[in-house]
Amino acid sequence: MAKELKELTPRGENYAQWYNDLVLKADLAENSAVRGCMVIKPYGYAIWEKMQRELDNLFKETGHVNAYFPLFIPKSFLSKEADHVEGFAKECAVVTHYRLKNDPEGKGVVVDPEARLEEELIVRPTSETIIWNTYKGWIQSYRDLPILCNQWANVVRWEMRTRLFLRTAEFLWQEGHTAHATEAEAVREAETMLNVYADFAERFMAMPVLKGLKSPNERFAGALETYCIEALMQDGKALQAGTSHFLGQNFAKAFDVTFINKDNKQEYVWASSWGVSTRLIGGLIMTHSDDNGLVLPPKLAPYQVVIVPIYKNQEQLQQISEKVAGITAALKARGISFKYDDNDNKKPGWKFSEYELKGVPVRLALGARDLENGTIEVARRDTLTKESVPVEHIDSYVARLLDDIQANIYKKAFDYRTSVTREVNSYEEFKEEIEKGGFLLCHWDGTPETEERIKNETKATIRCIPLEGDKTPGFCMLTGKPSAQRVVFARSY
Amino acid sequence: MAKELKELTPRGENYAQWYNDLVLKADLAENSAVRGCMVIKPYGYAIWEKMQRELDNLFKETGHVNAYFPLFIPKSFLSKEADHVEGFAKECAVVTHYRLKNDPEGKGVVVDPEARLEEELIVRPTSETIIWNTYKGWIQSYRDLPILCNQWANVVRWEMRTRLFLRTAEFLWQEGHTAHATEAEAVREAETMLNVYADFAERFMAMPVLKGLKSPNERFAGALETYCIEALMQDGKALQAGTSHFLGQNFAKAFDVTFINKDNKQEYVWASSWGVSTRLIGGLIMTHSDDNGLVLPPKLAPYQVVIVPIYKNQEQLQQISEKVAGITAALKARGISFKYDDNDNKKPGWKFSEYELKGVPVRLALGARDLENGTIEVARRDTLTKESVPVEHIDSYVARLLDDIQANIYKKAFDYRTSVTREVNSYEEFKEEIEKGGFLLCHWDGTPETEERIKNETKATIRCIPLEGDKTPGFCMLTGKPSAQRVVFARSY
Repeated sequence: MAKELKELTPRGENYAQWYNDLVLKADLAENSAVRGCMVIKPYGYAIWEKMQRELDNLFKETGHVNAYFPLFIPKSFLSKEADHVEGFAKECAVVTHYRLKNDPEGKGVVVDPEARLEEELIVRPTSETIIWNTYKGWIQSYRDLPILCNQWANVVRWEMRTRLFLRTAEFLWQEGHTAHATEAEAVREAETMLNVYADFAERFMAMPVLKGLKSPNERFAGALETYCIEALMQDGKALQAGTSHFLGQNFAKAFDVTFINKDNKQEYVWASSWGVSTRLIGGLIMTHSDDNGLVLPPKLAPYQVVIVPIYKNQEQLQQISEKVAGITAALKARGISFKYDDNDNKKPGWKFSEYELKGVPVRLALGARDLENGTIEVARRDTLTKESVPVEHIDSYVARLLDDIQANIYKKAFDYRTSVTREVNSYEEFKEEIEKGGFLLCHWDGTPETEERIKNETKATIRCIPLEGDKTPGFCMLTGKPSAQRVVFARSY
Repeated sequence: MAKELKELTPRGENYAQWYNDLVLKADLAENSAVRGCMVIKPYGYAIWEKMQRELDNLFKETGHVNAYFPLFIPKSFLSKEADHVEGFAKECAVVTHYRLKNDPEGKGVVVDPEARLEEELIVRPTSETIIWNTYKGWIQSYRDLPILCNQWANVVRWEMRTRLFLRTAEFLWQEGHTAHATEAEAVREAETMLNVYADFAERFMAMPVLKGLKSPNERFAGALETYCIEALMQDGKALQAGTSHFLGQNFAKAFDVTFINKDNKQEYVWASSWGVSTRLIGGLIMTHSDDNGLVLPPKLAPYQVVIVPIYKNQEQLQQISEKVAGITAALKARGISFKYDDNDNKKPGWKFSEYELKGVPVRLALGARDLENGTIEVARRDTLTKESVPVEHIDSYVARLLDDIQANIYKKAFDYRTSVTREVNSYEEFKEEIEKGGFLLCHWDGTPETEERIKNETKATIRCIPLEGDKTPGFCMLTGKPSAQRVVFARSY
């Protein structure tokens, strides 16, 4: 297998190739036989499961419940919200038939022309339409509100250029869809979920994010306002990591969802929707990893510790394994996940580089000498340093170390972002600086035309209008017209 | 809303209508705008989440990992395994196009005829083909085996007659797909998972099941042997609750998946697959529920306890709520889930029947009199009995009660099954007895022809050839030919 070839293309040589190499060689995902669809391999899926578990807890803590809505959307539903159809109806998978039959002319099967659907079904690219059509039956009065539903699901968008995790035709995500009696409550919900996403990104992924609003050009199709978290990858390109939309009454109007309010008057329902996807795994990889492989935050690593025995014969292995049993029991009691790799077919050196590639945060190695001395070797993946420490209380040592790694990789990413975030005041300077990557804080006149021209000329877009930080007004770097505050430009994934 | 009308059609009057009423009125699921596809509502989905969590734990304890494979299957893949295509390729959703465009003749969107796929994609009805095509790249040597993957996913089978949870076009399930170096190991895996399913059904769902083999007629399309668990619903009809297949080398041959064995010889890989679905929720409902509503096993109830305050004024409510705070803290410490319903818009009587309908295992009611007396009213859903007990140590009382309810509803279902399971020795008797429902233990000559004739004449099928119990040989009730052992006949869902 290709596993023997663990070398990655260095980031400095070709970042995109490094990323692709890493996803494949760390066994995270691979392309499938179906164009644009990936297979998420067990190690990659284990990261997604950890993300799901933590996000799901955060959703439930904020009062949300899960539900499940159909995979298919009747074609006519997509046309009901004018902006939405422009944004989503075009590149999607269309089901036209419901039966195959044996090929009358020979081998295999063919589509049965008699089994044509009266109305085509679209594989959901997002579920606002089918969900608001459902909510119509659930809502009569303000007493039925709010509805705070989330769905864990697969969606399909027929992307032309795909990259593992970052942009695939099918991807996994969660989509929250909430219904409210007032505008203020729907806005508050969208903001609450933006904060949940930012909290998750920073506390679990150790990935610093900017919180902001999208410019009208970058808004979700059908939203009045799109909130987002934007992260910065090591190559200086931005990654949109999550979005939360205030949808106003657009979908309620499209699907005629009204309620009787407290004043006994009929009103359209207010909405929000919000989502993050397996794209986050791409962001996780590109925030922390290095030329040796993955670097995973302890809070999301499939296992946090790997233990490798160093032995010359079966008797030594036996002695080491007995010692390890005590260590793993202590780790388990602390809720620290681990793998003891006593596979006899592989040498310690092979194992060391394998777990380095896979980003296991802490590696413990135990040999005959250690048994004599009461020591153990501890290596941390983030700094690639190792030291020999007393084996006694190694569990509490590891617990502290995991916290330290989580904090350290966050700080490293935060410092990197700070180092490549700068104010730019003229368009000339902008065109020069954008080539170097990073976040550029610039004044913009607030018009789609200016944003569009900058995008066409420099490939940079407004990543967000930040909610926090400096709000001093100024003048647009391109047109000189007034600007309410600096916005964040970058090239992006 | 229809919620005010909580009355269900009694089971004795119309069992199918009772089931449908209950699914709708207990807010478990509803039909969607898409033919045959259901919406799983939050309360129903919460049961599925509990099932998923427990099953996933059991899978991981037996060495399995999760992964994710594409939703779409190239049409040609389905033709590669001859039996499989016969069983699955016919009624399925076919994606033929990947783009819509604005209707040139007016409103809405139409399929863009220029965006026709070269090869049609099938929405997975099950994933053996796409997964074995993927495994080809993962397996070279016996060292790469076994592969023990599970997938949680949605699948689509274009069913003509659908019923909520029991038979829907789209449903949620898990599908395990394992690859092995030897036949014996693959058979053992299929048997292990059968036992996991039976354990889950009995220990968590409190639903007794028969473990057995399917007759060739009822086997999975592409399997050499199908193991199953069969449950019996209250109306005397059987429900196939889970299947585990020994696939031999069929899919390895179809997708050319070979490995170098320990003797350095090339060999085809051995396979198993196994799955359970949201259909289990239908089985859960029909095993325990009654004319008053759902009866849920404590181990899978979204919340195990509901607490209802009985008060005349806000001061009383305040005092009761303070007392309840202590109770809920104690329940939480024991890991017992609960809901405190202090909603002021609904009367206690309304709440009582609501939670009865929703099958909450234990209801606690606390009033002003209880505060004085140091008592609390405890009602159990399974027996519909209530009693007043000391509020002190109510948490340990409830913990024991939940265990008792779990055991009691299992026993009730087990006793019912026993009462309607009987040996039948002649075909005349069979035709009479099958009308009464239940499991009929009969001798059968082992031929598909006999099974087919019995099915056509009585609508009964062989649910399974039991693995446990009496194995005395005899003579087929229809043909008089030799029979190796009695098999289980029933009408089924």
